[in-house]
Amino acid sequence: MTMHEEDKRPAYEDLAVALDGGDEGLRRFLDDAHAADLAEWISELDRNDTARILALLSVEQRSELLNFAEDAERIQILEQMDVAEIVEVVEELPADEVVDLLALTDDARTEQVLRKVDFGRAQGLRQLARYDEETAGGLMTMEYVTVADDVHVGDAIKEIRSEDGPAAEEEGGVFVVDSKGRPVGYVSDRDLLTTPIHTPIREVMESNLIPVRAHDDQEEVAQLVYKYNFSAIPVVDHQGALIGVISGEDALEVLQEEAEEDIMRLVGATPQLQFTRLPTWQRVRHRLPLQLLTVMGGLVTAQLLELIVSTPAGGEREVQDFLRYLPIVIGLAGNVGIQSSTILVRAFATGEVGPDREAAVVRSELGVGLMIGLICGVLTGLMASHFEGHSEFGATVGAAVAVAVVWAAFLGSVIPLFCQRRGIDPAIVAGPFLITLSDISGAAIFGCIAKFTFLK
Amino acid sequence: MTMHEEDKRPAYEDLAVALDGGDEGLRRFLDDAHAADLAEWISELDRNDTARILALLSVEQRSELLNFAEDAERIQILEQMDVAEIVEVVEELPADEVVDLLALTDDARTEQVLRKVDFGRAQGLRQLARYDEETAGGLMTMEYVTVADDVHVGDAIKEIRSEDGPAAEEEGGVFVVDSKGRPVGYVSDRDLLTTPIHTPIREVMESNLIPVRAHDDQEEVAQLVYKYNFSAIPVVDHQGALIGVISGEDALEVLQEEAEEDIMRLVGATPQLQFTRLPTWQRVRHRLPLQLLTVMGGLVTAQLLELIVSTPAGGEREVQDFLRYLPIVIGLAGNVGIQSSTILVRAFATGEVGPDREAAVVRSELGVGLMIGLICGVLTGLMASHFEGHSEFGATVGAAVAVAVVWAAFLGSVIPLFCQRRGIDPAIVAGPFLITLSDISGAAIFGCIAKFTFLK
Repeated sequence: MTMHEEDKRPAYEDLAVALDGGDEGLRRFLDDAHAADLAEWISELDRNDTARILALLSVEQRSELLNFAEDAERIQILEQMDVAEIVEVVEELPADEVVDLLALTDDARTEQVLRKVDFGRAQGLRQLARYDEETAGGLMTMEYVTVADDVHVGDAIKEIRSEDGPAAEEEGGVFVVDSKGRPVGYVSDRDLLTTPIHTPIREVMESNLIPVRAHDDQEEVAQLVYKYNFSAIPVVDHQGALIGVISGEDALEVLQEEAEEDIMRLVGATPQLQFTRLPTWQRVRHRLPLQLLTVMGGLVTAQLLELIVSTPAGGEREVQDFLRYLPIVIGLAGNVGIQSSTILVRAFATGEVGPDREAAVVRSELGVGLMIGLICGVLTGLMASHFEGHSEFGATVGAAVAVAVVWAAFLGSVIPLFCQRRGIDPAIVAGPFLITLSDISGAAIFGCIAKFTFLK
Repeated sequence: MTMHEEDKRPAYEDLAVALDGGDEGLRRFLDDAHAADLAEWISELDRNDTARILALLSVEQRSELLNFAEDAERIQILEQMDVAEIVEVVEELPADEVVDLLALTDDARTEQVLRKVDFGRAQGLRQLARYDEETAGGLMTMEYVTVADDVHVGDAIKEIRSEDGPAAEEEGGVFVVDSKGRPVGYVSDRDLLTTPIHTPIREVMESNLIPVRAHDDQEEVAQLVYKYNFSAIPVVDHQGALIGVISGEDALEVLQEEAEEDIMRLVGATPQLQFTRLPTWQRVRHRLPLQLLTVMGGLVTAQLLELIVSTPAGGEREVQDFLRYLPIVIGLAGNVGIQSSTILVRAFATGEVGPDREAAVVRSELGVGLMIGLICGVLTGLMASHFEGHSEFGATVGAAVAVAVVWAAFLGSVIPLFCQRRGIDPAIVAGPFLITLSDISGAAIFGCIAKFTFLK
């Protein structure tokens, strides 16, 4: 972390000291602390300390704390609040955050809260809660400022000032809608501030909008925001009318989270890595499936090799040479396969490869695999031949490397592509399954080639 | 990609059609196209078509195009512009973008451009260009609006209106500075719009700032923005005076890019993956080093096994059994090692694990490794014993799996930690090197245990 002498941010230890003192000192400490830090510290505290802190926080501070906290801590905090307190918080937070929060309480409690919230807002919240968390609808808020397309800049400013609560406070900019409620433009707050108030809104608005639908995948929306650098993106219904807005920041955070998830899935771990917070056994349970797959793959490989080894034709010495060089063949194939699949998985995730370029990318990966296979095959073959003093053996190892590597590159590009087309998340399949498949087929390829050459 | 009937975004094919027609039609097409799309298409066009398009674009459109283009296309575009045209573009773009752009032209040309830019701005640009690209200084702009801490909201709005060019147009919000130029608060444009103009600025400003230094790593800055949800972060000199501002959006994009880089490095590919744009041979060259490492590791393993295999004590059949089960032992160890290292690399990259929690995380990884090792060891041992009908053999395989997995978990957490402390990027070392090391040591561990048991 950045540490300067002037960096006086309070640390967890300071909270521990404040907790040992009286309520007055603790309150002063909490007033100075940032909600993001407090949210982190809460995860280390017991129920009593958390309750004491919650009692000292203002409604605004509690809302901020809930806003920054992870789901595990949110549940803990919500459990210690009564319905009236939750209602207060709900009135402070933007709609998309409220929906995420209420999803963490049980249905009966959510219902009690919604009955005490302003009727119109409660309806909107119920509507939002219906969308899948992973879609544009799950990411959007219905609280934002809109103006008609025939107003002037000054009218838009007045409209923002007349709004109350989250709509005016949270999202920047205003959307301009036509008489049918369809978004036709966007004006940033900065443009509103710097343009003379009598200017027609049509003259300052950015009209190059790309609306999305509520059921669109959140990752696709995030890609649009990243590519076009949008400050906000409009969500429309099937008639094209504006029903929600997603802020650019929320969308960019989706990309970051999805990157994290991809990496973890590629190595067969779960996205929610929580280190010391999760007990060891739970972390083991998340990571074990990949290992079990490897156990199965290894056992299949061992049986496969038994078929080759048990043939009386091959001399014992040759069999041993074959087996000793097996790790290098499957190691190389596995590497190339996982490189290809990782590159494709990320390319799909960031939108770099659209449906029109899929075939080209698979061809390109095969080209790369072929070249790497040939280079490594020749190199490994020469060295094996040199070390073992047996050129037929060297040639076999080299050929096996070349074929196994090209095959792995093929698997590593075709499997993610197949998953992507079938709507299966390629990251889950591309890592662990691919390596197991590539190990088994690598052993089979080497075995078959060896059968026709030095094991003959 | 999101595809609706109402999605009328022009595609590359439409550009090709427009290029076949006259200049008037092409100009109309370009006026409707988004600069982000155009930047993508340019990469597929030849020099002549690019020149024709550039000639038809307005200064604003060219600036936008350069803003969205990747470095390879930026170089191509800049080569086709004369100094006067570059100066026009420089006047449109924010300072941080200009510095990135000028870094792509040769020094003599940069000098010519800077001499024609407003003197004060040129000085600022020269200053910015001195910072390392990967630091806060390389990410910040010196063009933003500041106000004194004793003004009112109305004064701040006037200040924004009086500014001209990028400072007023690009960054949102204003920073409030004290009499010594130190940042004491930040006010968003939305707050300026919604607060009565006679309110003292001190009453609306967010005063919980965390300033960074120009030489701080950009990733650390990005982590702060992500954690605290800042709209902008102030950069200060050693006296604490404000010298630059980094927008929250730019910082979040850094996190996204670093995630991409980490994944690619973990599999030994380079971060700049460009698919069909990069010729196959270049992509091969980027990915070959990992394979060469595997070749070397595999050859070392083969020699190591020769030591075990050549011992006259072990029967031929036992040696073969040993070799046949080697892939499963090194496969499991490699998986666990790469899981641990990936989790740590990402934890360092997102700032989830600070220096104070490093030891705890290594302990936690070892705990997970031990448990996975025991589970997989028992399982693999039982199955090997069943398949081969030889319980001592099964026990050996099981023990080897357990020890090799724990050892790999140790390597997978200690190596990234060591790199992080020494300032080496852990992602580069944690992937390929780790797997090679884990393969070789896994073979050695299995060999040693086998020597004392069934190969005795």
